[in-house]
Amino acid sequence: MAKQQDTFKQVISHAKEYGYIFSSSEIYDGLSAVYDYGQNGVELKKNIKDYWWKSMVQMNQNIVGLDAAILMHPKTWEASGHVNAFNDPLIDNKDSKKRYRADVLVEDYVEKINQKAQKEINKAKKRFGETFNEEEFVTTNPRVIRYQEEQKTIMERLAKSLTEENLADVKALIEELGIACPESGSKNWTDVKQFNLMFGTKLGASADSATDLYLRPETAQGIFVNFANVQKTGRMKIPFGIAQIGKAFRNEIVARQFIFRQREFEQMEMQFFVRPGEELKWFEHWKETRQNWHASLGLGEENYRFHDHEKMAHYANAATDIEFNFPFGFKELEGIHSRTDFDLKAHEEHSGKKLQFFDPELNKNYVPYVIETSIGLDRMFLAIFSSALKEEELEDGSTRTVLKLPSILAPVKAAVFPLVKKDGLPEIAQEIIEELQWDFNVIYDEKDAVGRRYRRQDANGTPFCITVDHDTKEDNQVTIRHRDTMEQKRVPISELKSIIAQEIDFKTWMKKA
Amino acid sequence: MAKQQDTFKQVISHAKEYGYIFSSSEIYDGLSAVYDYGQNGVELKKNIKDYWWKSMVQMNQNIVGLDAAILMHPKTWEASGHVNAFNDPLIDNKDSKKRYRADVLVEDYVEKINQKAQKEINKAKKRFGETFNEEEFVTTNPRVIRYQEEQKTIMERLAKSLTEENLADVKALIEELGIACPESGSKNWTDVKQFNLMFGTKLGASADSATDLYLRPETAQGIFVNFANVQKTGRMKIPFGIAQIGKAFRNEIVARQFIFRQREFEQMEMQFFVRPGEELKWFEHWKETRQNWHASLGLGEENYRFHDHEKMAHYANAATDIEFNFPFGFKELEGIHSRTDFDLKAHEEHSGKKLQFFDPELNKNYVPYVIETSIGLDRMFLAIFSSALKEEELEDGSTRTVLKLPSILAPVKAAVFPLVKKDGLPEIAQEIIEELQWDFNVIYDEKDAVGRRYRRQDANGTPFCITVDHDTKEDNQVTIRHRDTMEQKRVPISELKSIIAQEIDFKTWMKKA
Repeated sequence: MAKQQDTFKQVISHAKEYGYIFSSSEIYDGLSAVYDYGQNGVELKKNIKDYWWKSMVQMNQNIVGLDAAILMHPKTWEASGHVNAFNDPLIDNKDSKKRYRADVLVEDYVEKINQKAQKEINKAKKRFGETFNEEEFVTTNPRVIRYQEEQKTIMERLAKSLTEENLADVKALIEELGIACPESGSKNWTDVKQFNLMFGTKLGASADSATDLYLRPETAQGIFVNFANVQKTGRMKIPFGIAQIGKAFRNEIVARQFIFRQREFEQMEMQFFVRPGEELKWFEHWKETRQNWHASLGLGEENYRFHDHEKMAHYANAATDIEFNFPFGFKELEGIHSRTDFDLKAHEEHSGKKLQFFDPELNKNYVPYVIETSIGLDRMFLAIFSSALKEEELEDGSTRTVLKLPSILAPVKAAVFPLVKKDGLPEIAQEIIEELQWDFNVIYDEKDAVGRRYRRQDANGTPFCITVDHDTKEDNQVTIRHRDTMEQKRVPISELKSIIAQEIDFKTWMKKA
Repeated sequence: MAKQQDTFKQVISHAKEYGYIFSSSEIYDGLSAVYDYGQNGVELKKNIKDYWWKSMVQMNQNIVGLDAAILMHPKTWEASGHVNAFNDPLIDNKDSKKRYRADVLVEDYVEKINQKAQKEINKAKKRFGETFNEEEFVTTNPRVIRYQEEQKTIMERLAKSLTEENLADVKALIEELGIACPESGSKNWTDVKQFNLMFGTKLGASADSATDLYLRPETAQGIFVNFANVQKTGRMKIPFGIAQIGKAFRNEIVARQFIFRQREFEQMEMQFFVRPGEELKWFEHWKETRQNWHASLGLGEENYRFHDHEKMAHYANAATDIEFNFPFGFKELEGIHSRTDFDLKAHEEHSGKKLQFFDPELNKNYVPYVIETSIGLDRMFLAIFSSALKEEELEDGSTRTVLKLPSILAPVKAAVFPLVKKDGLPEIAQEIIEELQWDFNVIYDEKDAVGRRYRRQDANGTPFCITVDHDTKEDNQVTIRHRDTMEQKRVPISELKSIIAQEIDFKTWMKKA
């Protein structure tokens, strides 16, 4: 746990130090749970978007893109259920005036019980040494069994109360468990109330005539309301998909874990419209396709876990999460959901417009079923960044910090150095840059010894360093060094472009899956 | 005028019919002044962004990118002046309950006088025929002179009242001119009040503890508050620039003209930080650079106009607009402003943080001066789209509708057709697509006669059509047809990739300037 926290802290500070992520409005002490992407972060984010977009839209003849606005007609959110059901149960402590998510208070209490059980296990592990059988211990030790049953009972009651919207019982549970305000220690609680997570705003000038709008809490609805427009003008035939990348906003009460859970975040979503009855076949197809996409980036198979839902959202008939091993443990990175015809039907009812497809093979109209793949762009950024950051021990006993980003996603593809700041070497380096920059993001660096420049580019995630030396003037060759292998090779300047192009070739990367 | 309106209507309907732009939430009858980009629109928009980003960030060693959040600390907008001064003067009609921008009411009145003058000129033109000298007429005809003077007097008084924030006089002016509510004809007006154009929202759950936030009304401030972070972590030396593409929001009372003035819109901005005293040199540099960028796209020199400001915003010491000939006349497309040190100094004062640069050559610290280039992405989209849409008369007397988008920006680069839907031709077409789609957006079309497919792709803006026929099976050649010239050529399949790549080569396009 302590090690995890250290790793996480290092990820956050490295992200700032190398211009990947800054707190939003940092000079004003930041805005909670909102972040800005710096000069390297913006490029990494853009490259992730392009990699997803190309693999989804460009590579699939039956998937097209869309870019719907953040502001939508408010009826959209009545139809989708967000006005009524997109809530967090909140509770205030009357003494500290602090507000909490009631479910999180209970979950934190349960986590403490879990830690007690873990402590028993660790003690026993120490006592028995190598002969310790953890599996047997947890199923036989009375204390551990009691802790586990306690956790289970509490979580089941919480789930039941929330499902039945029995908020009085959620409060009763908090009181029965004797949960105190973490700030004040007081147990003097208000009732639990539902709080809608959508950010509201007003369109129009006067209070009388203003329309209440919401910042969209998800991008999916922008696709559903445009279903008929895209299907008709794009002459799409089922099965077909609509892909979209865009921002969404949620007024989270407890937003933690850096860019993992932000109030302003970005989603990459694709809604795939299919014939009713064929949705589970396509659900499997997209599960596999998305797994392959992730595999192609080589972040490490061991960092992924697939979690099929047993309990579904009300609109779904199959759902799986792709979880990633973040610095704070396995958490959801992407969701793949079989959403049935819930959304399109809801919009039909609320708008009075037909959202159907005439299937020439079946010779009938129907509301298509939908498979959704939805990945958090900021989460994908964090997954890539945190798994790429390594402290490596080198042969000479020294260590290096290296950001082993997939080279196709790296913000800067190559740094060009003159060995020394004289003898015409900087000019040659600049000429190389002027040629390469038509195709790649490249940078120039002449400060410090070459070894230090290598380290700086390692930490920056730059796949190639290219050094111009005195021999270059004679043989038109330079030394190219690869970030991951640290291998150095002398190559003609004229080959640089193709070496870099080959390293970041989209087809080659996609085929790695 | 009537012709302009027809052209504009055609642009709007073509944009919808071919999946470029839909009204937002159209199934709910739309959200006023908000639009969604359809399957072709999203690609054109993305290509415009990439063209700008590459030319700004990738091609300039001293310019880096940034992606700041839409939500910012509210003090940002106090420092920038938006809380106090980003207002429209509004007036309500007490009978119709309709709300108007007071300045627009006066401007519309003045426009009517202008039309009267124009009528006199047209009458005289008709009367005198070819001998008519318009320049002489407008400076000698007493009626026209009176109309002109009346316009001038009114506009000067309006400008003075607004500058002095004398809203009572704006109301007095409306009453003196006898301006009536366009809806009800009533002259029963309320007082004029300032209305802030920022969309507000609340962060946090409870009304007590909630923070008032704004959706950013411009992207520039995201760059200014990150100045020190980017400069330090990117080790930038003055002169250097920070570029950003992102959304901004303005609660416009009167939003018209399609995507030209939207409530949610996107900007492409670059703030260039320079040594104080050198700003006018850099202002000229960026004026020229941005003109060249526009020229490279070949939208027609005659469609551009450059308008140097005589009256400046309070923070500027030089400013120019790049205006474009939209379907509704010449309007601002891009602004280039010398913003002095106004913004950084304001943020220094409000945050208490130093936003300075240590200049090693001068051996001193200073707050840099700023040259801004700011272009509306949606406006650029409209400029490209509307100037590309042509009705052409062909040699055989028929006409074709063709969307002559710059090929580097076109959503789809090539459409691949089998001549007929049998004999293995569709399979060959699919193989070609499977190879080309690694590099380009390409589509397949087998419906209707080839001639109709050509027309459809012309209207869609697709630069190339590739037809597979029976000979292809023997000679591995296809017919490639170019959208603009309609020229057809037989080429080997193996050359298709390089033909398309050459047509959309970034370097070649940039050098067209």
